Amino acid sequence: MSAPTVPFTGSPAIGLVCRNCSAKYPIAAQHACWECFGPLEVDYDLDKLAKVTRADIEAGPQNIWRYAPLLPAGVDPATRVSLDPGMTPLIDARNLAAALGMRKLWVKDDSGNPTHSFKDRVVSVALTAASQLGFDRFACASTGNLANSVAAHAARAGVPSIVFIPYDLEPGKVTASAVYGGELIAIEGSYDDVNRLCSELTETDEFETTAFVNVNVRPFYAEGSKTLGYEVAEQLGWRLPEQVVIPMASGELLTKVDKAFTELAEIGLVDDRNVRVFGAQSAGCNPIATALHAGTDVITPVKPTGIAKSLNIGDPAAGPYAIEAVTRTGGWMDFVSDDEIRDGIRLLARTTGVFAETAGGVVVATLRKLLETGKLDPEAETVIYNTGEGLKTLDAVAGAPTHQVRPSLKAVREAGLLG
Amino acid sequence: MSAPTVPFTGSPAIGLVCRNCSAKYPIAAQHACWECFGPLEVDYDLDKLAKVTRADIEAGPQNIWRYAPLLPAGVDPATRVSLDPGMTPLIDARNLAAALGMRKLWVKDDSGNPTHSFKDRVVSVALTAASQLGFDRFACASTGNLANSVAAHAARAGVPSIVFIPYDLEPGKVTASAVYGGELIAIEGSYDDVNRLCSELTETDEFETTAFVNVNVRPFYAEGSKTLGYEVAEQLGWRLPEQVVIPMASGELLTKVDKAFTELAEIGLVDDRNVRVFGAQSAGCNPIATALHAGTDVITPVKPTGIAKSLNIGDPAAGPYAIEAVTRTGGWMDFVSDDEIRDGIRLLARTTGVFAETAGGVVVATLRKLLETGKLDPEAETVIYNTGEGLKTLDAVAGAPTHQVRPSLKAVREAGLLG
Ligand SMILES: Cc1ncc(COP(=O)(O)O)c(C=O)c1O
Ligand SMILES: Cc1ncc(COP(=O)(O)O)c(C=O)c1O
Ligand SMILES: [Zn+2]
Ligand SMILES: [Zn+2]
Repeated sequence: MSAPTVPFTGSPAIGLVCRNCSAKYPIAAQHACWECFGPLEVDYDLDKLAKVTRADIEAGPQNIWRYAPLLPAGVDPATRVSLDPGMTPLIDARNLAAALGMRKLWVKDDSGNPTHSFKDRVVSVALTAASQLGFDRFACASTGNLANSVAAHAARAGVPSIVFIPYDLEPGKVTASAVYGGELIAIEGSYDDVNRLCSELTETDEFETTAFVNVNVRPFYAEGSKTLGYEVAEQLGWRLPEQVVIPMASGELLTKVDKAFTELAEIGLVDDRNVRVFGAQSAGCNPIATALHAGTDVITPVKPTGIAKSLNIGDPAAGPYAIEAVTRTGGWMDFVSDDEIRDGIRLLARTTGVFAETAGGVVVATLRKLLETGKLDPEAETVIYNTGEGLKTLDAVAGAPTHQVRPSLKAVREAGLLG
Repeated sequence: MSAPTVPFTGSPAIGLVCRNCSAKYPIAAQHACWECFGPLEVDYDLDKLAKVTRADIEAGPQNIWRYAPLLPAGVDPATRVSLDPGMTPLIDARNLAAALGMRKLWVKDDSGNPTHSFKDRVVSVALTAASQLGFDRFACASTGNLANSVAAHAARAGVPSIVFIPYDLEPGKVTASAVYGGELIAIEGSYDDVNRLCSELTETDEFETTAFVNVNVRPFYAEGSKTLGYEVAEQLGWRLPEQVVIPMASGELLTKVDKAFTELAEIGLVDDRNVRVFGAQSAGCNPIATALHAGTDVITPVKPTGIAKSLNIGDPAAGPYAIEAVTRTGGWMDFVSDDEIRDGIRLLARTTGVFAETAGGVVVATLRKLLETGKLDPEAETVIYNTGEGLKTLDAVAGAPTHQVRPSLKAVREAGLLG
């Protein structure tokens, strides 16, 4: 696709910039640098960003588009291709804090988004940009949640979709993608195979006008995750927390929450404060955390296993940038076993009423481990991110009734329920 | 339990009143009239309600508690026992309207609530009242969603819970109740058996301080549903729609949305307008609709069957009041088969991006039938209610990928995906 002749109406984005060598490019459906093959990121007019006020944002809608002046696309509401996700609850997790011996802990709960994961944020921004760039079919390579979100966005917009998933996903994620009636392609391989295939597909004639949200329009997609940083700051009363714990698959979400915090301080919307950023993976797929532990930012790809399927990216594109953010801020990364993940889901549910998918279990279990190893300060104000929904990964904690009895007072008494 | 010595702080509620014989009672955990055994409803100080302004409400939080001055409990935020549900999206359903030949249609989508059904609204109000009344354990008789919500609310509040369900519920609803760690009791019978048993339990010593949200504190519980009427009016810009379609189990939700519309006009927050109220049931459980069709308000109980389990109440307590509301406003009721329900879920997903549970499929399919039979005006502004989440009833539309292929361009080409 060629770049539009004018930038997106009202957008503070002025181009794309290589995260590696800082080469600059115009706004277009391009995700890799022609000089060094590094990933491209959106480049902003900082003066324009600096003019945005808290009042501007507070006057906006109760969804991610209140931050449109800080995003690459969507300032003009008529251009939005969106289910209007965002402004999900920031929950004061007193009981969980008490259980873990922490002073002050919040859960940013993104399971209330339209398709019940944070992916609605990135998809809304990606597809808004994509439709401005002239794409007329929406696609993705997905570990599950992204497929749900792209298929649902396309249905609302009345645009065809084709989403690619590994063939061994949870039934919840398959049905919740298929129900929207777009094409759903199961690939006999891992997510990394799916991703490679989708990269190839973007080069074919048949996919020339297809936007793969996390491939050819990835720079716009990635920016959507910033809203998970903005919202936490606004919901805390326009200030930054001291520590955050974030699940990692590609590592992109973590880098963008960090970027959001930095940006907010730079443009004066919050007081500057170092936010220590912590990354969470599963033991079945821990390439970023193990690289950090080994003191390198060179990621050795792994073949993922384990129940945290939404995080199972063995060759994580943003891994080095996640390591940079964690190192710069004084955070850390760790990983947890499947049993710890299950316990994490249960602990979160029992103390907060939030039923998270496996990715949320990874975060809670990693939080506990970071406390045990002394990496995370129990006295510092901490926000953990629940990015997905327990109903999508039911098998992880499949539960049974505590009693089954006949419908009579006598049966209830015999079951010991009347003491 | 005895009545509190003073009414709930700041509440506009002045007592309870019999829906049948208008006998009055003080605020207490009482749900049936001693004179005539009729159901009790909350009685308000109308002068106090009339003082509430749009600005008061708009200055409130983005959840049901913005309407606290119109609810029986919760004016004082410190008294709230709540996951803070509400202010869910009102979606302009253009594609669905076009598919059905309608002029203007919205979907009020309550799947974004904390436990993904409208039940969070009624539970928040019931438990706020219950805790003020001194109860120290939370319970319910549930067709599924209520169990999820009560268990989650209790977990957040750190209060013990015991929820009763029929033994044959969907796995999604069982796991999503069990995960919170309270007592979950499966009863070998129908919902109606569960409900009868719970009524008996409230009379036992062991359950004296247990609040069954839809039994002994039902008058407060029922009021929570009014917020589904208030929000629609506010989201339309403080005006009423012309027609609404509402799913019915006990029939309570329908009567309370109607009550909300009437109240808003009475206290001057919207212009008066007759809202034609339509009720939706499944063919497997249609006692209210068949009574209306037979020209009576005497409900003949049925033994429910079919996939819309959340609506499977065979002996619906509020049935006569639902018939009264529908008749008074010039609406109608109808019911649909399991296959129509499945089609309804798919049609909604494909046109709006909303994945509803079977209850939502019932509403969409009934909407279609009401249009076909000429009972509902395609030219009039219509709001339909999706009250639950598709992820909880996956089996209804279990979906498969459209293709399964090896991870190579060649395989994709052979599958016909490259034309
Ligand atoms: C629920 C959930 N959380 C977190 C992530 C991690 O996202 P990222 O790839 O940006 O690291 C994913 C990715 O699919 C996800 O589905
Ligand atoms: C999803 C859903 N919608 C609608 C209803 C109907 O509620 P009511 O009993 O107030 O008619 C229920 C009741 O359980 C429900 O679970
Ligand atoms: Zn470069
Ligand atoms: Zn009476």
